[in-house]
Amino acid sequence: MADLHLLSPAGFRATGVYAGIKTKQLPDVGLLVCDAAAPTAAAVFTTNKVFAAPVKIGREHLAESGGKIRAVVVNAGNANACTGRQGDKDARRMCQLTAGVARCQEWEVLPSSTGIIGHLMPMEKVERGIVDAGQYLGDSLEHALLFSDAILTTDTRRKTAATEFRVGRQTVTVAGVCKGSGMIGPRLALKAKQATMLAYLTTDAKVPRALLASLLAEASDESFNAVTIDDHASTNDTAAVVASGASGVAVGGRAEARKFADALKDVCRSLAYQIAADGEGATKVVVVRVRGAATERDAQAMARAIANSPLVKCAMHGNDPNWGRIVSAAGYSGAEFDPSKCSLTLQGTVVFRNGQPVPFDDAKVSESLRAPEVVTELNCRLGKADATCWTCDLSKDYVTINADYHT
Amino acid sequence: MADLHLLSPAGFRATGVYAGIKTKQLPDVGLLVCDAAAPTAAAVFTTNKVFAAPVKIGREHLAESGGKIRAVVVNAGNANACTGRQGDKDARRMCQLTAGVARCQEWEVLPSSTGIIGHLMPMEKVERGIVDAGQYLGDSLEHALLFSDAILTTDTRRKTAATEFRVGRQTVTVAGVCKGSGMIGPRLALKAKQATMLAYLTTDAKVPRALLASLLAEASDESFNAVTIDDHASTNDTAAVVASGASGVAVGGRAEARKFADALKDVCRSLAYQIAADGEGATKVVVVRVRGAATERDAQAMARAIANSPLVKCAMHGNDPNWGRIVSAAGYSGAEFDPSKCSLTLQGTVVFRNGQPVPFDDAKVSESLRAPEVVTELNCRLGKADATCWTCDLSKDYVTINADYHT
Repeated sequence: MADLHLLSPAGFRATGVYAGIKTKQLPDVGLLVCDAAAPTAAAVFTTNKVFAAPVKIGREHLAESGGKIRAVVVNAGNANACTGRQGDKDARRMCQLTAGVARCQEWEVLPSSTGIIGHLMPMEKVERGIVDAGQYLGDSLEHALLFSDAILTTDTRRKTAATEFRVGRQTVTVAGVCKGSGMIGPRLALKAKQATMLAYLTTDAKVPRALLASLLAEASDESFNAVTIDDHASTNDTAAVVASGASGVAVGGRAEARKFADALKDVCRSLAYQIAADGEGATKVVVVRVRGAATERDAQAMARAIANSPLVKCAMHGNDPNWGRIVSAAGYSGAEFDPSKCSLTLQGTVVFRNGQPVPFDDAKVSESLRAPEVVTELNCRLGKADATCWTCDLSKDYVTINADYHT
Repeated sequence: MADLHLLSPAGFRATGVYAGIKTKQLPDVGLLVCDAAAPTAAAVFTTNKVFAAPVKIGREHLAESGGKIRAVVVNAGNANACTGRQGDKDARRMCQLTAGVARCQEWEVLPSSTGIIGHLMPMEKVERGIVDAGQYLGDSLEHALLFSDAILTTDTRRKTAATEFRVGRQTVTVAGVCKGSGMIGPRLALKAKQATMLAYLTTDAKVPRALLASLLAEASDESFNAVTIDDHASTNDTAAVVASGASGVAVGGRAEARKFADALKDVCRSLAYQIAADGEGATKVVVVRVRGAATERDAQAMARAIANSPLVKCAMHGNDPNWGRIVSAAGYSGAEFDPSKCSLTLQGTVVFRNGQPVPFDDAKVSESLRAPEVVTELNCRLGKADATCWTCDLSKDYVTINADYHT
């Protein structure tokens, strides 16, 4: 599937242009347009009570259009958050201009922004960027890459994923791009959520709006909501999917819905993993698995507490099998937990079992932690609920990046 | 009060010796003995579900002795946590030996340990340390300092505080020492709690046990439970107070109880502040004040979310007035919050008000952040509840310290 991309699903065009919002000369305004007659769309947004203007306007437009989103406009370099009424006006203006380009209504446009909070948008640049982008829309791989680059901030690489499945003789494609490296601890929901994580998904399946919304929420829980870099849910987090229907395949029956749900989850999970791998300062992905918790909520609370512990993340950075930090993080997560029943593995080596340390070869386990992916698994033996959380190690580069981002 | 110390309250002796548990040649076993006829004591412990053997045994002893603790034994360099039954035996053995030295019952001893989790205690060294320490108990300033040094781990300096107040012609002294630099996010309670934060308080007031316990819990909430370095509640957190009664002043009436409560809070707050100032890698204290929240719980949740955000802590390290990170952390704390009503100051400068950014001199505010103490105040204008949280900035040294602690 290596050659599939965001614009492989039929019915979409996109591009990205440099409008001068970012300090680096890289694309910072992106447009994604769906040319189908009757697209359906769904989006999940940050649950942060401080939500950016584009999140507010995006929610309104989704409701006003009845989920018929025909275009997405994104800028990087400024979050348009904590910007008051002027911020709302600016987000609306972005939609207005995009509607002109995409030949649709203003309320059929979903706006997004990412970057610094609390600064008014440089609207002259943004406006010029949208108009420019409108002249260069296309459906090639290059167009897809320009869009995926336009949404990046502190990311060191673009993040894309795609898959396809067959229904009879027909092929349905599901694809997506996302950004996210810092301020990553999304809690996305249909009603509200935050970090700046942005994800845009395209498909040429024909999917009823309500089904699309529930499948997106389900996929987000198992992917974007399971990634944490710094637990800092942002003001702008957004994941949106637009279904063009251009494949002619209607996802209605159970079998197709299951296939589509699986494809959507695959794409979202791949994107989420890429966010963990490109976390600010990251040198490795840390996969935290919790098994046998009493409830789903408990499993997630433990996985998240472990993944968010700076002590655990520093130990992983130092290839240090200091597993006490992992067990103790589970202990303060608020979940039901009994160390005398649990066991813990680090890269497959049991280090703690039934409340007792298990002797292991320190040097060997430390060596096994020098890997691009480290897996730690806590088996609670209290129930049947499992959860997985993806994070990265905490390095000095994280401090460098975040002590100097503003200036 | 500069010359007051842990052993200024009448009725106490202490010392610290080097037993070889720490790798550095510094005191690592401490004893604190109360020689009064009828002392009372109270302690709050970590609420972590993974609690160390000394926490377990300490809780049992407090109950068995009816709060009549006559000695405290502490070691640094090994937490005796996640050590199973052998850990319990070792903690009991520490109490047994201490009882011999202090001429009291085993269940009148409160044990504590701090250091790495998941390693069995080097009991030969610990035992020799306790016996040695028993031979050098005294009540001088030097003895107090030796005890305060024996409890330190990654701390770069000792932490002590003391105050006195008068009741008629008599003077009552309240004093304390503590340790804590990393794994600091205590949630101490009478029933249960974690990070390794240890604090020992002495007083020569005569205080009924139940009153002492409730005043300690109250003081801990406003001090130790309001400090966070990495939000990692430890397996070993303990704060204990022993009242010798040797001043002859009985704290029974309302007026004396108030005076004593204030003195206890002063000492605990000073110790907590010292922990923030000596946080791993810290270059400054960050004081997070939240005012006008709807409820106490909301105020605390917002203050804690802000104080725990790695993005906020990195910005403070970089003297970067990137206040959007502060407002957005309040927004995801779960508390009731309305950015359109709130205002935020950084070192006294208003940067955000009623949902709008307030223009400010970036260079000047950045300069004001180059201080040993940075204060940020969020006024929510939703109610009357206030909270303060102390933390420190996040520097590269935090990563250095914690990526290499184990080895």
